[in-house]
Amino acid sequence: MFGMKRENHFNNINDIFLSEDEFVFDKLKEECGVFGIYNKNNLDSARLTYYALYALQHRGQESAGIAVNDGEKLLFHKDMGLVPEIFNEKILNSLKGKIAIGHVRYSTTGASSRENSQPMVIKYKSGQMAMAHNGNLVNAAKIREKLEEEGIIFQSTIDSEVILNLISRFRLSSNNIEEAIVKVMKEIKGAYSLVILTPNKLIGIRDPHGIRPLCIGHIDDSYILASETCALDAIGAEYIRDVNPGEIIVIEESGMTSIQMEVPGKSALCIFEHIYFARPDSYIDGASVHRARIEAGRRLAQEHPVEADLVFGVPDSGISAALGYSMESGIPYDLGLIKNRYIGRTFIQPEQGQRENGVRIKLNALKEAVDGKRVVMIDDSIVRGTTSKRLVQILRDAGAKEVHMRISSPPYIYPCFFGVDTSSRSQLIAAECSVEEIRKMTGADSLGYLSLEGLLKTPVGAKCGFCTGCFTGQYPMEVPENANKYSCG
Amino acid sequence: MFGMKRENHFNNINDIFLSEDEFVFDKLKEECGVFGIYNKNNLDSARLTYYALYALQHRGQESAGIAVNDGEKLLFHKDMGLVPEIFNEKILNSLKGKIAIGHVRYSTTGASSRENSQPMVIKYKSGQMAMAHNGNLVNAAKIREKLEEEGIIFQSTIDSEVILNLISRFRLSSNNIEEAIVKVMKEIKGAYSLVILTPNKLIGIRDPHGIRPLCIGHIDDSYILASETCALDAIGAEYIRDVNPGEIIVIEESGMTSIQMEVPGKSALCIFEHIYFARPDSYIDGASVHRARIEAGRRLAQEHPVEADLVFGVPDSGISAALGYSMESGIPYDLGLIKNRYIGRTFIQPEQGQRENGVRIKLNALKEAVDGKRVVMIDDSIVRGTTSKRLVQILRDAGAKEVHMRISSPPYIYPCFFGVDTSSRSQLIAAECSVEEIRKMTGADSLGYLSLEGLLKTPVGAKCGFCTGCFTGQYPMEVPENANKYSCG
Amino acid sequence: MFGMKRENHFNNINDIFLSEDEFVFDKLKEECGVFGIYNKNNLDSARLTYYALYALQHRGQESAGIAVNDGEKLLFHKDMGLVPEIFNEKILNSLKGKIAIGHVRYSTTGASSRENSQPMVIKYKSGQMAMAHNGNLVNAAKIREKLEEEGIIFQSTIDSEVILNLISRFRLSSNNIEEAIVKVMKEIKGAYSLVILTPNKLIGIRDPHGIRPLCIGHIDDSYILASETCALDAIGAEYIRDVNPGEIIVIEESGMTSIQMEVPGKSALCIFEHIYFARPDSYIDGASVHRARIEAGRRLAQEHPVEADLVFGVPDSGISAALGYSMESGIPYDLGLIKNRYIGRTFIQPEQGQRENGVRIKLNALKEAVDGKRVVMIDDSIVRGTTSKRLVQILRDAGAKEVHMRISSPPYIYPCFFGVDTSSRSQLIAAECSVEEIRKMTGADSLGYLSLEGLLKTPVGAKCGFCTGCFTGQYPMEVPENANKYSCG
Amino acid sequence: MFGMKRENHFNNINDIFLSEDEFVFDKLKEECGVFGIYNKNNLDSARLTYYALYALQHRGQESAGIAVNDGEKLLFHKDMGLVPEIFNEKILNSLKGKIAIGHVRYSTTGASSRENSQPMVIKYKSGQMAMAHNGNLVNAAKIREKLEEEGIIFQSTIDSEVILNLISRFRLSSNNIEEAIVKVMKEIKGAYSLVILTPNKLIGIRDPHGIRPLCIGHIDDSYILASETCALDAIGAEYIRDVNPGEIIVIEESGMTSIQMEVPGKSALCIFEHIYFARPDSYIDGASVHRARIEAGRRLAQEHPVEADLVFGVPDSGISAALGYSMESGIPYDLGLIKNRYIGRTFIQPEQGQRENGVRIKLNALKEAVDGKRVVMIDDSIVRGTTSKRLVQILRDAGAKEVHMRISSPPYIYPCFFGVDTSSRSQLIAAECSVEEIRKMTGADSLGYLSLEGLLKTPVGAKCGFCTGCFTGQYPMEVPENANKYSCG
Repeated sequence: MFGMKRENHFNNINDIFLSEDEFVFDKLKEECGVFGIYNKNNLDSARLTYYALYALQHRGQESAGIAVNDGEKLLFHKDMGLVPEIFNEKILNSLKGKIAIGHVRYSTTGASSRENSQPMVIKYKSGQMAMAHNGNLVNAAKIREKLEEEGIIFQSTIDSEVILNLISRFRLSSNNIEEAIVKVMKEIKGAYSLVILTPNKLIGIRDPHGIRPLCIGHIDDSYILASETCALDAIGAEYIRDVNPGEIIVIEESGMTSIQMEVPGKSALCIFEHIYFARPDSYIDGASVHRARIEAGRRLAQEHPVEADLVFGVPDSGISAALGYSMESGIPYDLGLIKNRYIGRTFIQPEQGQRENGVRIKLNALKEAVDGKRVVMIDDSIVRGTTSKRLVQILRDAGAKEVHMRISSPPYIYPCFFGVDTSSRSQLIAAECSVEEIRKMTGADSLGYLSLEGLLKTPVGAKCGFCTGCFTGQYPMEVPENANKYSCG
Repeated sequence: MFGMKRENHFNNINDIFLSEDEFVFDKLKEECGVFGIYNKNNLDSARLTYYALYALQHRGQESAGIAVNDGEKLLFHKDMGLVPEIFNEKILNSLKGKIAIGHVRYSTTGASSRENSQPMVIKYKSGQMAMAHNGNLVNAAKIREKLEEEGIIFQSTIDSEVILNLISRFRLSSNNIEEAIVKVMKEIKGAYSLVILTPNKLIGIRDPHGIRPLCIGHIDDSYILASETCALDAIGAEYIRDVNPGEIIVIEESGMTSIQMEVPGKSALCIFEHIYFARPDSYIDGASVHRARIEAGRRLAQEHPVEADLVFGVPDSGISAALGYSMESGIPYDLGLIKNRYIGRTFIQPEQGQRENGVRIKLNALKEAVDGKRVVMIDDSIVRGTTSKRLVQILRDAGAKEVHMRISSPPYIYPCFFGVDTSSRSQLIAAECSVEEIRKMTGADSLGYLSLEGLLKTPVGAKCGFCTGCFTGQYPMEVPENANKYSCG
Repeated sequence: MFGMKRENHFNNINDIFLSEDEFVFDKLKEECGVFGIYNKNNLDSARLTYYALYALQHRGQESAGIAVNDGEKLLFHKDMGLVPEIFNEKILNSLKGKIAIGHVRYSTTGASSRENSQPMVIKYKSGQMAMAHNGNLVNAAKIREKLEEEGIIFQSTIDSEVILNLISRFRLSSNNIEEAIVKVMKEIKGAYSLVILTPNKLIGIRDPHGIRPLCIGHIDDSYILASETCALDAIGAEYIRDVNPGEIIVIEESGMTSIQMEVPGKSALCIFEHIYFARPDSYIDGASVHRARIEAGRRLAQEHPVEADLVFGVPDSGISAALGYSMESGIPYDLGLIKNRYIGRTFIQPEQGQRENGVRIKLNALKEAVDGKRVVMIDDSIVRGTTSKRLVQILRDAGAKEVHMRISSPPYIYPCFFGVDTSSRSQLIAAECSVEEIRKMTGADSLGYLSLEGLLKTPVGAKCGFCTGCFTGQYPMEVPENANKYSCG
Repeated sequence: MFGMKRENHFNNINDIFLSEDEFVFDKLKEECGVFGIYNKNNLDSARLTYYALYALQHRGQESAGIAVNDGEKLLFHKDMGLVPEIFNEKILNSLKGKIAIGHVRYSTTGASSRENSQPMVIKYKSGQMAMAHNGNLVNAAKIREKLEEEGIIFQSTIDSEVILNLISRFRLSSNNIEEAIVKVMKEIKGAYSLVILTPNKLIGIRDPHGIRPLCIGHIDDSYILASETCALDAIGAEYIRDVNPGEIIVIEESGMTSIQMEVPGKSALCIFEHIYFARPDSYIDGASVHRARIEAGRRLAQEHPVEADLVFGVPDSGISAALGYSMESGIPYDLGLIKNRYIGRTFIQPEQGQRENGVRIKLNALKEAVDGKRVVMIDDSIVRGTTSKRLVQILRDAGAKEVHMRISSPPYIYPCFFGVDTSSRSQLIAAECSVEEIRKMTGADSLGYLSLEGLLKTPVGAKCGFCTGCFTGQYPMEVPENANKYSCG
C-alpha cells in the first residue's frame, strides 16, 4: 500500500500522490496476486476470494477484481483501489457461485487503468471465460503484432488479452479447453501463473520455468489455487503442494486433474519472492519465506560482519533478515525505526521546505534504541538509494554513532522482464555505481550486500531453481528487445 | 434522468432505484447520443464535447464518455452516471487534443455495465481508434457468431465491438480506413449513427436508412458531428446539414469530405425521435421537433376533438403537443401538472403503504387550474399504462370533472429493433388491449390516439421517410429472430 | 438547484461551481423550507419528511436535515447537498420515530457551512429539542451580543441558535415550553416560521407579521406543518389552513392546540413567495401561487401591452405569468426557451473564450418558435440584469425580430432583511438604473415592469397583507443597521 | 485503525464494521491526540498540523480536525474518518494561518458523531476560540447540569463544550483569557490536556495530575504543543520538555510564557500510555515508551519465567515487551504472528461458518517459526479475552507445542474515568475471573501478568507519578457516580 507509484490518469484523479523522488520509498513494485476456488458445497466462493485477496494485497494495491460463475453466466466486479475499497457487502452478495477467481494488481509497466484491471472476462465461441494473470510474457508484443496482422483488436495492454485470444483460437481446433491451453503454452514465453474460470472448471497454470509462484490448497471437498500459502491460511485451507512448473491443474465437479507439460531442465522461481515480495508466513515451492530471510540475515552477518551495538530491519520487509543477522552475529536485535501504520495512498506531499521530513513521517528513528549506538540497518534491496540516504540521516539525527547498512540480496543491476517493474536500468543505482560509491552517496559508515552464492542457499528446502537475472543479467530464457512493450500480470 | 431503469449490478450498487412497476414512469427508454469535433485551432475539444454531451444528456443517462487524441495517443475517460458526475475540471484538463468524440448511453437491452460504456477504444494493426455508436444492429448476433467461429473474443455486449472488429479486419485488405468502413457497411444491417476517432481523422457514419439522426455543424474552421442540433447550439456552432443516410463524413486537417454509399429507395428516420426522444429545440433531417409536436397536437385535436375547459401536456415531452391541441381546438392551454425538478436517480421508493404517492412526488396536479374543470391531458405515448392511470387519479383528486387523454402518436404495439428498449411485447398495453380497454384501465373519460396518417404529416419539411415499425410491425428491413440478442449504441 | 452561489469552503470543496458573474442566473436566492409531522400511528415520520423535503427542495439546495424523536432520544442526520444526496435507505431506516422535523436551506448571508445546517439539535435543562427555521431575525445580532455579555457561546451563525438559547432561558421561569415560547416571541423581531421537535410535541410558530409561510395539514389522525402546501400533496395529506401570524401550534398525542399571540394590525407575507419562491401548485394564506402569477401576467399585459407574435416565459418561474399575459393580450403562447434539465451543481464553467455559451447550455432558444417573430419574454424579476442581457442576445441570434421584456414584479430596489439574500444594494440594477437604462443594458426592444398596485391585486383571495419592502423600502418593522449580521433560516 | 468500535449511526452509515464480539481485537480504545503550533514565520501551520496528526493517528481514528487562525477569523475543517481521508490538498491550502490546532479522536463513551468531532470552534464575547481536548472530566456532568440550570444549551456531548462555556463565563470577570482559564481549572476535575486557539494565542493546558501527556517542542522561532513527541519528530521539531501538571503554556508573538497552578503532591500520568497507547518512539514526562516496554518485558521474565523455545509479541504493541522478555530470559526472539497491513475500517465480516477465520485474516501464525516449539506470546493487556483465545488456537493449529501467555501489565479490573473506554466492568474478564480461570478460558499453557510493583519501575527516568486506577481501583481523585455520563477528549 505504501511506496507505490500510481499513474491512473483518469481514475480517482483527485488523489494527490507522493512524489516518487522524494517521498515514496524507492522500492521494487510488487507484481500481482491471483486466487481461485472451486467450492463444491456452497455459493460463497466470492466471499472467500475476498478474504484471500486481502491476504494477497501486498502483491498489488492498484486494482482488484473477482469473477464468479453463478451457474448461468460469469459475474464480475473490478475497480481501481484496495480490496476493501472496491468491495462491500452488497457487491459480495451479488457475486454468488461455486467457482470464483480473483486478482490484485500492481502494474509492471506504468500502464495503469481500469481497462487493465483483472480478471479479464470474455465471451468466445465456447462461452464465457475469465482469467487472472501474475507474471509477464516476453513475447507478448510479438504475438500481439501477429494477431493484429490478422485483424484482431485489443482493448487493453495486458498479457491476459493476448493469452485469451490465443486460447480462443486454439480452442477452435481442439477437443477441449485443456488441449487449447497446451497449445497456447507452446506459443507464449515468459512468466505466467494463471487462474482461469470457465462455466464449469477452475484451471491453474504455471509457466514451464515456474517463475511466479502458484500453490494448491484444499478445504473440505474444495480446491483452491493461490499465489501464496498465506491466502490459504486466511480462509482456513490446507496447503497441499505447489503447481509444478509447466503444469496445468484442472479442477471440476469430479475433482482435480493435472496435465504436465514438458519443461526445461531446471526451474527458475523469482528469487525476489523470497527476498521481498512474498509474505513471511508463506511457503513457496516448499521453502519458508521467513526462514529464507532469516538465513539471508545469517549469511549476511557471516559475509559482512561488523562491530556494532544493535541490529534492526527496515520495516516491514527487512525484519526477518535483521533477526537472522542478530542470531548469527550476537549483536542485539531491537527496533530502530518505527513505521507509521496509517500513511496511505492519499498522503499529501510535504512542501519543498518540509520535504526532508517526508520519510520521517513514514519512518521515525527510535531514538531511545539508537542514541549513542553503532547500528546495523538491514534492508532487502537498494533500488535508487534515495530512501537509504534519508534513513541514514534520520538515524544520525537520532544519535546513532555509526550506521552500517546491510542488504539481504546482491546489487540489483539488471531489469526484470518477468513481472517486476524496475523502470529503466539507469534508475538502478547499482547499475551505475560501485558499492563504495553507493555507500558514500547514502552516507552509511559501511555497506555490505549479500553475495549471490549466499543468497541462493537461503531458501532452505526449496524444490526449485531460481531466476537471478536482476543480479546477473542471465535470464532463464532469451528476452526479446521489446519484451516489456505490453505487459503485466 | 427520471423514469429510467438501471440495472448496473456491479456499479454504484448502493443506489436505490425506483421500482419500475410503481414509480418509474413507464416511458420508452432513450437510446444514445453521439458527438464528435475536429477542432483545428485548439486543444479544447474534450471540453466542448463535455458541453455538447450535457445538451444530449436526455438521450442517455446511464453512462458517458469522452475520447480524445492528444497527438500521440488516445486518451479517454468513461464511467457510469450523468455527465456532470463523471467529469470534473481535472479530468477535462487531462484530456487535451484537437479531435474528440463523446457518448451518452442508455442501454437498450438491459445489459448495463461499465464494460459497455462508450466510446470503445481499441488498438489494432493501424494504431488506435475510438468509436461511439447510436442505434442497434439487427445482424450483430450473426456477425458475432461468425467472428467467434474464427476465434475472436468479445469483452462487451455492445455492437461497437462487432463493428470495430470488422473495421480492423477489412482494413487489412484496404488502402485506408474509409475503404474498410465502406466494406463494413455492406456487412452490418440495422440502425447506426457512428462517430469514429482515429489519430488524424474524425469520421461520421449514418446507416443507409438513416434510422438514427446525425448532423453536421461547424464553428470557426472546425467541424462537428452530433446526434442533435441542440448540441451544436450548446457550443455556439452552426448547423450545416444532416449526414445523409448511407453517407460517410471524413473530417481531417484538410477539411471535410464525403463518401456516399448506395442506399435503399427511401430513408426511415425513427419517428419517435420527433414524438419523444429528441429535444424540442433540435432539427432532424430538416424538420423542427417542436414544430412536429405542435402539428401532432393540432392533428390530434382534429382527429379527437372534445369539449373541455383546459388542455395541458404531461411534462416535459407532452407540452409542445398540448400547445398544438390548444391552438387548433381553442381550448385554453394551462399547466395541469407540476413536475418536481429535483427527483433524481437515487430517489428512495415509498414503502408499500405510501406507494400511491410515488407519482405525486414527481408530478403534482395543479389544483388551481384543474379543479372543477374538464381537462385534456396530452401525452406522447402509452407504454404500459400504469402512470397514465395514476395521473388520471391525481387529476380527479384535484377536482378535475372530466379527464380526456390524448396521445400524440398511434398505439405502440410492436417492439423496436433499432435502438429503443421496449421490453417484451407483452408489456406494451396496446399490444394486448383495445383503445377502449386502455381507457377503462386508466380511468380516463375518453382516450384518443393520433392516427399514423396524421403523425406522418407532422415533421413539417422533413427531407426523409420514417420508420413506423413500432406502430405497424413493418420495419425498414428484415429483422432476424435474435436481432436484439446483443445490442445497443 | 441552479443559479445558486455556494461558499462552503470546507465541504465538498472539490466541486467546481459556476462563476456567479457569468453563468449563474442572477436570481434571488431562495431561502429555506421547513416541515414537521406528528404521526400518531407509525414510526415512519422521517420517511414522510424525506418526501416532503423533496417537494420543498426549491426553497433551499445547500443543505438539508431531518431530526426525529425515537421515543427515547433525538436522532438526526444533516449534511451539505440535495435531499437525495444526503439520505439513503439505511439512514432513513435508522431514523425511526413518531415525530419528525426537516429543513432545506439556502443560506441568506453567505455563511454556508455544515455547522449552519439545520435542524439544530440541542440538550438543555428540560431535555432535548430540535428546531428548523425559515426566515431572518432583524434583532438577532443584538440578542446575541446581549447573550454573549452573559457568557453564552455560539457555535454557528444561524438565528436558530439564538432562539434556542432564549427558549432554554425562558423555560427556567416557565411552567412549560409553550410559556417559554410566548416569552421568546416577545423578544425576537423579524421573519420566522419555526418547527420545533421536543420529546413529545411538535410545535409550529409563525412570526406576528406572517412574513414566511407555514401551513397545517393532516392525514389520518396525524398533523403536519409545512412551508408550502405542495409538501402536503407530496405525502397525500390534506391542507387544513395556514398557521396564523403570531400563532403557536402545539401538536401532541392528544391532538392540536393553538396559542394566538397579539399581532400588529396587518400581516405582511413576503410578496416574492407569490412572484418567485413558492411552487405554482402551492397555496399560501388562501391564495394560489399559480393563479397569482397568471394574474400578474394579465395585469402586465394591461399595463404594458405590445404588438407581438408570441409570448413565452423564462423557465420555470416565468411560465405562469406568460400564460396570463397571453390570455389577456391574445398573443399566442409558445415555448421560446428550452431549459436543460440536467445542469447541476457541479457544472464546469466554460473557459473564457466560450463563456458566452454558458447561458446557452442552460437555456437554448427555440429557433422554430421565435425565428422572424416579435416576441414577449416574461421573467419574474431582474436582479443584476446579466442573464437578461444574454437571453435577449440568444433570442436575437435565433432570429427574433423584436424582444420585449416584461417583468411580473416592480423594480427590485431595496435589500430584504427577512430571509432573502439580495447581496448589497449596489448589485441590484434597478437600484442604480432607470427602467430605460436597464432596457438599453439588456438590449431589449422594450421593457415593462408590473406596478406595485397591480402586483398587490394578484394573490387572489389572499387572507393576508404583504411585505413589499424590496420595492418600496417600507418594511413591516424597523430594521436595525446590523440586521443581517447573523442570519438565516 | 484496526480493532476499533465505531458507532457513528449517521455518518458513513454504509460502512460495514466488524462485529466486536468475534472479530475486533478486544483492545482498549485509544483516546485522543491534540496538537498546536504557533508558527511565527509562515502560514503553513495547518499543513504541519496535518503531518503531526498523522503521527498521532494511533490515538484516535474516528474523527479528526484542524482549526487555524487566518489573521481575521478562525477557519476549520473536521469530519469523521482518518486524517488522510478528511484532508486533501485543496482543503489544506484553504486553511492558511500562523496558529493552528488539531485533534484526532476516538470516542470514549460511544457517543460518536460529527457533532462531537474536534476542535470545537465557538464565538463568544471576546471573539472566536477553538479547543481540542484529550482526557475526560469526572465532574463534567455536574457542571453541565449546573449550567443547564441557568439556561445554557449544549449541542454535543463532549467536555470541550463544557469547558468552553466556563471559559466564556469566567472571561467576563477576568482581565484576560489566562485569568479565565485559571478560574476554570479550579472548577473542572479529571484528565485534560487542552490546546486552545485564540486570534493571537496558542494555549496549552495540562490537568493538575498530569493524567494525559502534553509536550512542548520548537522549531526555528516557533513553538509547538503535542500529545506525544513522535508528532514533533514528524515535522522535524525539537522536544523541549513536557507541560507540567497544572501548567498553562501561553504562546504568542512575543514568545512562550507559563502559569503554574498549585497541584496536588504527586502527579498521576496514565500508566497505560506506556503500556499501550503511546507510540514506542515517544517520550512522556522524560521516559521512553519503548524503554518502558522493554523493561516491562524484562521484569515479566523475572516474575514469570518459563522454559520455551521462542518469544514473540502480539503486533504491534507487544513487540517491545517481547524484546525485553527475550533479553532477560535468553529465549530467542522471533516473529510468531504476521499482521495483515491492509485490514481497514470497512473489512467485511466473515459469515457465521467462516467466523473462526476472522482473527486469522488479521493475524496469521508464522508456522515456520512456531511449529514444534514452546512459545511465549507477549501481549500488553487482556480486556475480554476473546482474541487471546483465538490466538492461542491459531498458534496451536500452526504446530506450537506449548503456548505461554505473558501480559506486560497487571490484570485490568477497574474502569477508567479519565479518557479510556473500558465499557462496563462486567466486560473486563479480569474483574470476573481469576488468572487461572482466564488461562483456562484462553487455552494457554500458562499465563502470567506483570505485577503492579514491577510495572511501576518500567518508565525509567520518568519525572512523574502514575495513575494505576484500572489495576487498583485507587484513582488520583474522587470519582462521582455519573463521571462518564458525558465525556471524551
